[in-house]
Amino acid sequence: MSISSLHAEYSSNLMPVPAEIKNLEGKFVLGSDFPVAVEGATSEALEKAVFRSLRRLEHRTGLVFGRAPAGGDVYVEDAAAAKLVIVAKKASPDLPVLGEDESYFLSVSESGIRIESETTTGAQRALQTVFQLLDSDQENWFFSALEINDSPRFAWRGLMLDPCRHWQPIEVIKRNLDGMALVKMNVLHLHLSDDQGFRVESKVHPKLHELGSDGNYYTQTEIKEIIDYAAERGIRVVPEFDIPGHASSWVVGYPELASGPGPYYIERKWGVFDPTLDPTNEKVYEFLDTLFEEMTGVFPDPYFHIGGDENNGNQWSANERIQKFVKENDLEDNHGLQAYFNRRLNEILSKYNRKLVGWDEILHPDIPQSAIIQSWRGAEGLAAAAKAGHNVILSNGYYIDLIHPAKDHYLNDPLPEGHGLSEEEQARVLGGEATMWAEWVSPETIDSRVWPRTAAIAERLWSSGSVKDVDDMYRRLDYISNRLSDIGLLHDANQDLLVDRYAGDRASAESKEAIHELLTMIEPVKGYERSRQQPLMNQYIPLTGLADAARPDSRLSRQFDNAVDAVIAGDKELSSLSQFLGTFSEIASKLESAASELGPRSTEILALSKQIKELSILGTSLVSGDKSGLSKSEVETQLTELSTPVAAVDIPAVKAVEKLYAHLNK
Amino acid sequence: MSISSLHAEYSSNLMPVPAEIKNLEGKFVLGSDFPVAVEGATSEALEKAVFRSLRRLEHRTGLVFGRAPAGGDVYVEDAAAAKLVIVAKKASPDLPVLGEDESYFLSVSESGIRIESETTTGAQRALQTVFQLLDSDQENWFFSALEINDSPRFAWRGLMLDPCRHWQPIEVIKRNLDGMALVKMNVLHLHLSDDQGFRVESKVHPKLHELGSDGNYYTQTEIKEIIDYAAERGIRVVPEFDIPGHASSWVVGYPELASGPGPYYIERKWGVFDPTLDPTNEKVYEFLDTLFEEMTGVFPDPYFHIGGDENNGNQWSANERIQKFVKENDLEDNHGLQAYFNRRLNEILSKYNRKLVGWDEILHPDIPQSAIIQSWRGAEGLAAAAKAGHNVILSNGYYIDLIHPAKDHYLNDPLPEGHGLSEEEQARVLGGEATMWAEWVSPETIDSRVWPRTAAIAERLWSSGSVKDVDDMYRRLDYISNRLSDIGLLHDANQDLLVDRYAGDRASAESKEAIHELLTMIEPVKGYERSRQQPLMNQYIPLTGLADAARPDSRLSRQFDNAVDAVIAGDKELSSLSQFLGTFSEIASKLESAASELGPRSTEILALSKQIKELSILGTSLVSGDKSGLSKSEVETQLTELSTPVAAVDIPAVKAVEKLYAHLNK
Repeated sequence: MSISSLHAEYSSNLMPVPAEIKNLEGKFVLGSDFPVAVEGATSEALEKAVFRSLRRLEHRTGLVFGRAPAGGDVYVEDAAAAKLVIVAKKASPDLPVLGEDESYFLSVSESGIRIESETTTGAQRALQTVFQLLDSDQENWFFSALEINDSPRFAWRGLMLDPCRHWQPIEVIKRNLDGMALVKMNVLHLHLSDDQGFRVESKVHPKLHELGSDGNYYTQTEIKEIIDYAAERGIRVVPEFDIPGHASSWVVGYPELASGPGPYYIERKWGVFDPTLDPTNEKVYEFLDTLFEEMTGVFPDPYFHIGGDENNGNQWSANERIQKFVKENDLEDNHGLQAYFNRRLNEILSKYNRKLVGWDEILHPDIPQSAIIQSWRGAEGLAAAAKAGHNVILSNGYYIDLIHPAKDHYLNDPLPEGHGLSEEEQARVLGGEATMWAEWVSPETIDSRVWPRTAAIAERLWSSGSVKDVDDMYRRLDYISNRLSDIGLLHDANQDLLVDRYAGDRASAESKEAIHELLTMIEPVKGYERSRQQPLMNQYIPLTGLADAARPDSRLSRQFDNAVDAVIAGDKELSSLSQFLGTFSEIASKLESAASELGPRSTEILALSKQIKELSILGTSLVSGDKSGLSKSEVETQLTELSTPVAAVDIPAVKAVEKLYAHLNK
Repeated sequence: MSISSLHAEYSSNLMPVPAEIKNLEGKFVLGSDFPVAVEGATSEALEKAVFRSLRRLEHRTGLVFGRAPAGGDVYVEDAAAAKLVIVAKKASPDLPVLGEDESYFLSVSESGIRIESETTTGAQRALQTVFQLLDSDQENWFFSALEINDSPRFAWRGLMLDPCRHWQPIEVIKRNLDGMALVKMNVLHLHLSDDQGFRVESKVHPKLHELGSDGNYYTQTEIKEIIDYAAERGIRVVPEFDIPGHASSWVVGYPELASGPGPYYIERKWGVFDPTLDPTNEKVYEFLDTLFEEMTGVFPDPYFHIGGDENNGNQWSANERIQKFVKENDLEDNHGLQAYFNRRLNEILSKYNRKLVGWDEILHPDIPQSAIIQSWRGAEGLAAAAKAGHNVILSNGYYIDLIHPAKDHYLNDPLPEGHGLSEEEQARVLGGEATMWAEWVSPETIDSRVWPRTAAIAERLWSSGSVKDVDDMYRRLDYISNRLSDIGLLHDANQDLLVDRYAGDRASAESKEAIHELLTMIEPVKGYERSRQQPLMNQYIPLTGLADAARPDSRLSRQFDNAVDAVIAGDKELSSLSQFLGTFSEIASKLESAASELGPRSTEILALSKQIKELSILGTSLVSGDKSGLSKSEVETQLTELSTPVAAVDIPAVKAVEKLYAHLNK
């Protein structure tokens, strides 16, 4: 991605924005002589982080740093002889813990880089900042002199990945952990079971993964590898086993755990399904006790997520025995029954020293205050849970699977203005998590759904609440997107791959370029619309179309939308929009020429080309003041037609023209 | 990659070329109704192959095939109701075996696709052909009607990967196995130990991987995963443990096995090093016996590679005890001592029912005839070994790490004209292996070194020896390159990534495009030249420069070279070269403009720009007949200067201009 707007100081490109930054005169020029001194505390994780940092600097610059005789990096005892000095007061534990001190001080002077921190984890956060600060001019790679004091606003800054709906191999997890570390996130939440798959090896109940995963699961060795990889980056791993609903994959192998008669099969579609564990069956608790005993041995983090969302209650309501149990135990209704189930889970997890985490459906007067609530259904849920004494994590507003623009997530604050929480209640808001539900992502497209938008969420959770300039966020998002590519994220590279495949063998370079230009002005349909656009949904349908190559934030559309806003605000002339409308028209023409090379794809490309051309004509007539004889209702009809998605993509510029039209006709 | 030359029949694009092909009238139109019938024998591997084939067709076309009620693919009993019919006579064993019948018959008619084969492996080979045959017009995806009869020329068609010099995670291995299957290769040779790393977990001798790998090794579970993944694609896995030389990583943990005093460390550089196992020490054989017992349990293939190459003998010569042993046992010299060592290894491997394979250094009168020789040092080695009664595998001429063009490998036949071998000796030539030594490849660049060139080697080993039209091979290589990208190889996608990183944040789209154009006319330096160009070599230096983004076959250079050949042959006018020279000049100008955005990279970009501009001027003066007053020696001096690599890349067009100059001055 090329970057158009350059600031003089690279420090202004950092994401997340640090708490305090002071730019100084001068710079440290990076050369092949780059010895390191680690004073004070160290840890294996820090040593590996230094190794990675040096490799990354070499990879970006092409410089080859000096090496010690046996081939390793050059470490020196004397800080005065070093160009990178790290002074951590104490070594962080091997496994990161919630609330650890992650603060750091970073200074760059002409003689080198110095990091000071309370913990080795803090020093690792600083190294990510260093990587982002690397700058160059025609002659040199360098770091501008500065001082940074930094620390996070929230302690829980997470990303949830869902390998259930679409399997995500371990390399996907690892590269996303690298992305998380780059933007200082510290919790990976793995959603490990759902109707569409049970994704972790269980030696105690092997039919879970053997019959519930199509062979696509993480072995316990791989889980250890993921946990180690995360821990080395100062990231905790919280597992989720989603029950009692979303349990189809569990009951394929163990139908006796369900609340209705089987047989069951792995669910291939998306939605809310009936198979639900039976909370009145003592065997279910024995099963969960032994499973959780095993899984708490595999996942060392003190937090353990039991899901609890979207239990439709169909099997419970249809089962007389279960309804009798509800009455006999004064549980009131199915919600009460689920609270009973959760209390039982909490007892089991307490035995294994785990704190129960669940989606906000678990909130109920009967659930112990020690349970952590992850809020996804609305901002009220978060406040209600915090007031009820629970620690809470915000995910409502961070549902990155819904393809909303980065801006929407960025402005979604866990503690928004007027939140009405007391200081004590505010302290219960631990942070937030971006949730990457995987109904519509493959290993090939997932990076472009997670990144770079998740960097905006990471900033919301790390930086001060007062940092909320949307334009500046988008400007910086371009830099962080490049850094993410530098370290192995495939959000950019795989778009090229998708376009090449989509275009096919007969497409010329020009035709592929036309598709790339189209991608700057379309976006995948938002929210849950894609399931309506592509009703033939199934775990194995192709995710290789335009909607998969398109991004949640399309650049040209955003620029046009900003320009329309400027016109409406009176900051720009109406005529300033003509250039955009001309570009739209050109893109439409290029697509029309490309179509003949695109095989059966030509149908949707021509339909989009037509929509864009019409939009350009309509916009131009609005800008020129010539309505071409179209009545208000005709314009409105046309706008509605242009809003009808083709190939499961939207043209956001239609909304901008609509806005312009409303402004001109008010 | 866009493809310029289209043939009417997609069947003419196949790689490898099938033994017999008959194009027929009509076509089978692919729609969402695509039921499958598997008649006769089946296997889990075939079922998975059908599943993959259906997914791949969906991924390329965007079609969604019908699904059975539980979400799986639609299988029918009645072949008449199916659109893909597979009839294999017998199920192949779970583990592929050397010499299995891989032949198949494939027919496409208007009613569908039919595959017949002796074995389920043969049917899998046919499915790869089907994937390559998918064609489209403006309206439809289709398969042209035809009949193919196909079978391989050689039984051993391999690719060697080297995860020692640069670690290659399991996903690299897997995607390359997919590429191998696409072009019908059937042996993955894993070079698992070398001076720079011991890459497999040993539970019996754990210090091998614990101290010899920096933590980068395949667990035994992962090895099983690789073997299963390969076996499902009809590919055998042959492990190599390279001894007695190349043993630095072994003796880090077990210095007592070496022929000289330690301590030892993991080697970070490239070359031939001293650490060598001690063949006079009985403890060495005990160690190897227990290791091989373990490893033959992990690797089930009957062939077991013990390396044996590049033992420099330094430690043996310097060790009096060892030299005494040579004398006392009438072993003549170090080579005789190595033959003694290999005989001992052969005895151990025989216990575990393994056939010993080794590089051609192991050839010696004392080595048993049952040993298989892998020839790498010259064509003579292959013939000599075959004449000595050994089965042989050709790798000389298939060293893809040396960055020679696909053409060179393609024309390298295991049984070249005038080979002088008897029929019996010819039968001992099992096939060949492309060898991807990993001194200069990272997981990010390896695909572009292996692919698409290895497809040309795969064709050499599968297709008739009479198939050797180089131009047609290059034409078809473009198609197979696209298919490789379709299935997940990253040779194309990662070039974009490398260029983006190389160009950096300040580069405009035009500047990046200029670098892409440069890449069509440069190639990484060939042979062992890179080590001379970049003497600061080390396992961890960056492989992110121009030489890493460039390809072994640069398109524009090849086209220019062909044009020069046509001029020399008298088939074209001299003036036909002007267009190329003009393009060169344009590329040079674009690079010059780009330089200001490229930071410190600008130095090498400007140097290359200058070389290309000078080449264009020189070529233009030759074409116009105007030598601009340059004397013969001045021209020759200039050509020599232009041949001096910048940034470890060559401009192959310089050689073509040199050729033209020689022609014009003869």
